[in-house]
Amino acid sequence: MDGETQFVLNTFSFLFWGALVMWMCAGFTMLEAGSVRTKNASVVCLKNVGLYAIAGLTFYLVGYNIMFAGVEETGFLGYGANGLERSLLAGDASSAAPVTAHGHSSMSHWFFQMVFVGSTASIVSGTLAERVRLSSFFVFIVVLTAVIYPVVGAWTWGGGWLARMGFQDFAGSTVVHSTGGWAALAGALVVGARSGKFGADGSVKITPPSNVPAVTLGVFIIWLGFLGFNGGSQAALSGVVDALTISNVIVNTNLAASAGVLVAVTFSRQVFGRTDLLAVLNGAIGGLMAITAGPAIVDPYWAIAIGGIGGGVTMIGMKILMLLKIDDEVGAISAHMGAGIWGTLAACIAAGADLVAQTVGIVAIGIFAFGVSIVTWKVIDWTIGARIGPDVEVMGQDVAELGIEAFPEFVPAPED
Amino acid sequence: MDGETQFVLNTFSFLFWGALVMWMCAGFTMLEAGSVRTKNASVVCLKNVGLYAIAGLTFYLVGYNIMFAGVEETGFLGYGANGLERSLLAGDASSAAPVTAHGHSSMSHWFFQMVFVGSTASIVSGTLAERVRLSSFFVFIVVLTAVIYPVVGAWTWGGGWLARMGFQDFAGSTVVHSTGGWAALAGALVVGARSGKFGADGSVKITPPSNVPAVTLGVFIIWLGFLGFNGGSQAALSGVVDALTISNVIVNTNLAASAGVLVAVTFSRQVFGRTDLLAVLNGAIGGLMAITAGPAIVDPYWAIAIGGIGGGVTMIGMKILMLLKIDDEVGAISAHMGAGIWGTLAACIAAGADLVAQTVGIVAIGIFAFGVSIVTWKVIDWTIGARIGPDVEVMGQDVAELGIEAFPEFVPAPED
Amino acid sequence: MDGETQFVLNTFSFLFWGALVMWMCAGFTMLEAGSVRTKNASVVCLKNVGLYAIAGLTFYLVGYNIMFAGVEETGFLGYGANGLERSLLAGDASSAAPVTAHGHSSMSHWFFQMVFVGSTASIVSGTLAERVRLSSFFVFIVVLTAVIYPVVGAWTWGGGWLARMGFQDFAGSTVVHSTGGWAALAGALVVGARSGKFGADGSVKITPPSNVPAVTLGVFIIWLGFLGFNGGSQAALSGVVDALTISNVIVNTNLAASAGVLVAVTFSRQVFGRTDLLAVLNGAIGGLMAITAGPAIVDPYWAIAIGGIGGGVTMIGMKILMLLKIDDEVGAISAHMGAGIWGTLAACIAAGADLVAQTVGIVAIGIFAFGVSIVTWKVIDWTIGARIGPDVEVMGQDVAELGIEAFPEFVPAPED
Repeated sequence: MDGETQFVLNTFSFLFWGALVMWMCAGFTMLEAGSVRTKNASVVCLKNVGLYAIAGLTFYLVGYNIMFAGVEETGFLGYGANGLERSLLAGDASSAAPVTAHGHSSMSHWFFQMVFVGSTASIVSGTLAERVRLSSFFVFIVVLTAVIYPVVGAWTWGGGWLARMGFQDFAGSTVVHSTGGWAALAGALVVGARSGKFGADGSVKITPPSNVPAVTLGVFIIWLGFLGFNGGSQAALSGVVDALTISNVIVNTNLAASAGVLVAVTFSRQVFGRTDLLAVLNGAIGGLMAITAGPAIVDPYWAIAIGGIGGGVTMIGMKILMLLKIDDEVGAISAHMGAGIWGTLAACIAAGADLVAQTVGIVAIGIFAFGVSIVTWKVIDWTIGARIGPDVEVMGQDVAELGIEAFPEFVPAPED
Repeated sequence: MDGETQFVLNTFSFLFWGALVMWMCAGFTMLEAGSVRTKNASVVCLKNVGLYAIAGLTFYLVGYNIMFAGVEETGFLGYGANGLERSLLAGDASSAAPVTAHGHSSMSHWFFQMVFVGSTASIVSGTLAERVRLSSFFVFIVVLTAVIYPVVGAWTWGGGWLARMGFQDFAGSTVVHSTGGWAALAGALVVGARSGKFGADGSVKITPPSNVPAVTLGVFIIWLGFLGFNGGSQAALSGVVDALTISNVIVNTNLAASAGVLVAVTFSRQVFGRTDLLAVLNGAIGGLMAITAGPAIVDPYWAIAIGGIGGGVTMIGMKILMLLKIDDEVGAISAHMGAGIWGTLAACIAAGADLVAQTVGIVAIGIFAFGVSIVTWKVIDWTIGARIGPDVEVMGQDVAELGIEAFPEFVPAPED
Repeated sequence: MDGETQFVLNTFSFLFWGALVMWMCAGFTMLEAGSVRTKNASVVCLKNVGLYAIAGLTFYLVGYNIMFAGVEETGFLGYGANGLERSLLAGDASSAAPVTAHGHSSMSHWFFQMVFVGSTASIVSGTLAERVRLSSFFVFIVVLTAVIYPVVGAWTWGGGWLARMGFQDFAGSTVVHSTGGWAALAGALVVGARSGKFGADGSVKITPPSNVPAVTLGVFIIWLGFLGFNGGSQAALSGVVDALTISNVIVNTNLAASAGVLVAVTFSRQVFGRTDLLAVLNGAIGGLMAITAGPAIVDPYWAIAIGGIGGGVTMIGMKILMLLKIDDEVGAISAHMGAGIWGTLAACIAAGADLVAQTVGIVAIGIFAFGVSIVTWKVIDWTIGARIGPDVEVMGQDVAELGIEAFPEFVPAPED
């Protein structure tokens, strides 16, 4: 395969798999909008469209430059394609050779990185649903996408100290999903639980999904998108080894999610007292998160084991958060952070990662992401207030913050 | 085009088109969840996520090895990529030449085949909605995906006796869709019709879709996915002829579905007494099924004719099943098996298939798929029971089997 | 890259990006079905499946031949692949060289063009929701897809007089979106506003979306599809410059939509008196429309500016239409025609287009599309009647025209 073909295929690969990852934002939206009570579903929609727009803009203006500062990709943002690419597009044929040698279009790399930022922000949205103030959420997302995620990214995929130490995270079990999970956990602690969620007697009020098919559609979208999330993270499609690796990644990703489903179907009755559909759907997500750190393994049996345990970790995490009275509307913390940590460690078993480096990475990123997030949430809370008022919570955010209802034509069942 | 480029493009082709076919499982979920009464919609979601997970695991552990036993693709499953590919990924450069000569990654082939299994299982789910017991359904899906479908596949795409006889089925009018339809028919006979569906006086109780936009979304997803289903079945993207053929396939697939819609819009009033949206949506599906056996034809006029007739066959099939008092919640038997048989025969007209071989294939696969399915369903019925109890049917499977409601916040209209 | 690889990649590019554009039809369906009152949602679904089917058939039989008459692509339709391609598929190896030299499969080009026609028709559907007669709508769509759009296309992308004059419209701000918008405006004038929409006292009755998550899903689908709409309009993927250009196009498209969201989030309170989710979603669409005429610009700052203004133009256009008492159910006229005109002019600033040519193109296409559309709508109105009767409007089109309800199991809130 000649250099030009490699350049075209590498670039197309970023764009194609990136489009699947972009699609995951719709999946998170459906998952969250279907999980909340209908009185808050419109705000969920606005939060998710908004976070994707914010992620795109901040990561263009600021985030990418932080994440890839000092590495070859950088130097172009704020201006468009890098200088050589601009020259070539302007007709300077002498730029063709060095551009081709670069291996892919800088802009395609930006796009693929940007959609990952969107996924990270989606996690926070899901956890904090039904009580975070809309404007405060957007402020936090600016910080998350412009600074927190990019710094974590710089340490790892940007070639920073964790990368040099040998920390391995193929597609982001820790870089993306634990980071999002830590940010969500910090938010959950500052914003607090929904009113009435946890009774003084230790009881937990179950708020079932208000639109189960929407949640299910969301999970199918995320599952599909994850083929791009993990497959595209090979970051090239320019030879036999790339093609083999991506094929393994996609098969393993699918098997891990399947195993997560199977574990949750089999054991959710023991954990939650019923065959719990939401646990099953989160089992799929947990399986996906768990395989993400090392999906390129050549023995898919490991993918089944890792994904199945990921599904179990997610269920147990949901249970633990309930016991700790931490309110996570969609189970995102356990699915993304819990299974993400498990997957980062599991990469030692199946993908030859170094246990020390993995542990240091998990801890360092956890401390950083959680620490900066909790400070940010605290500042937001002290200034504009992180949480909606109790009257808004009763009335629902849709009417109070947007002046509409998500389903204005259906008679709602009385609460409780 | 050099061998490495061919290898990369063939492999990518399996992965890309396969991702579209995976997406069809979300389409079948939406179609079925929107078609049933809301009291059963959550179980529909669980059945569909579960069947896709089961299909992935059983086809990895068992099914693929049955289907491609004795042909070159086999020998790797249970272990990951085949031996040469493992060597190459481990750094043994001497494996590069034979791997490249193989033409595509084995794992990408597995992925593309696996998502077809998911589609087959979805068909059964749709037909049996609202009265099949959840656990019994999963047991049947294990048998279907591990044994029934793979044996049919071995006879045809695995190079078995039907293939040698000249049986042609480009993308699975019979191999996938009739097989699924026969399995669904067997289930419908054993499980029986929903209570009250067929009156003693010959009346048929119409249960309209509970969520029409969800059904419509499902059909759009299936339509999109079918571009991959049929386009990817060229099984290569490594030259001008592949590119031309896939282009023809996609144009014909789209025209056939369009013609199916047109026929249903035009004639549904005659058949069903109204412009029947569900019939129109099934008309699209019938058109897709009909073209699937021979979509590579170079004259698209035939695609319009074949697809249009497919839409008509689907409507007539729905009517016949009603007269026979066979309860098919979503019309899957007529759309998949009826139009699938028509399409397999139509491949004689437009794609030069042999009428004898096609007929033998249709009959042999029908006998096998129906026979093994009915025995399996009978055994399930005698042991754990295929059908939910009458109280569960009244209460709805969601509350009875999962302890949740799909739309807990809307006041449901009283039944009847 | 050799000629065969170029042929394969160019062809695949049309098919892949085209599939994303096909998916937009599902997005428009969700957007419209969620925007109307539930009593009309089923007819919306039928209109949208129907329009896509009609577009496919008429553009195959008639439209494409008008649009590309006199250019190389033509001469094959009604028959399938062009003569050389048919010869090659029939085994005539001597056709291989000239087919390869053509650069891409004719059928893949048809497919990519056809899905654009579907988008154009979707625009009209959205504007006229809740009062256009189903059969009349289909008649208009036949004229739009067989004649109006193809003539506009012939003037521009078909190499006609506007193309020769220097009119630039990379992916169809004017060719697709303004054409659809003009056709919708003509329909809105002839069909008239929904009963009670505009009070004699100047009041406007707000009919909020009946299913907000469905509208949001629709916009995410359209956003995803637009990556294909604009990216695929490079019409080739056969070298470094194509790859760079498509990457720029996709980044700019995404930034423009993000900026449209941001502007609408920021200013919708000023324009509509609340943080208006529908305005925000239309802001994304307005941003997409605005960048579509010149997304290949190498400086993404322009994309942010153009898209942001596009979001603003859309909001202002919605307000103006209300003042003019023109009823546009989904805001399609302002988003597609308004922001489309803005984008066509903006191509002068950022993409070096000629202001005179752009203005002539906007005006000429506007006069033609609006003129033929209004005559067609008038003829339809005089013959079969463009509008449903007042009783149907009260009852809802679903029950009156299709005999079903979109959500038969939920108790509807009483109107007003």
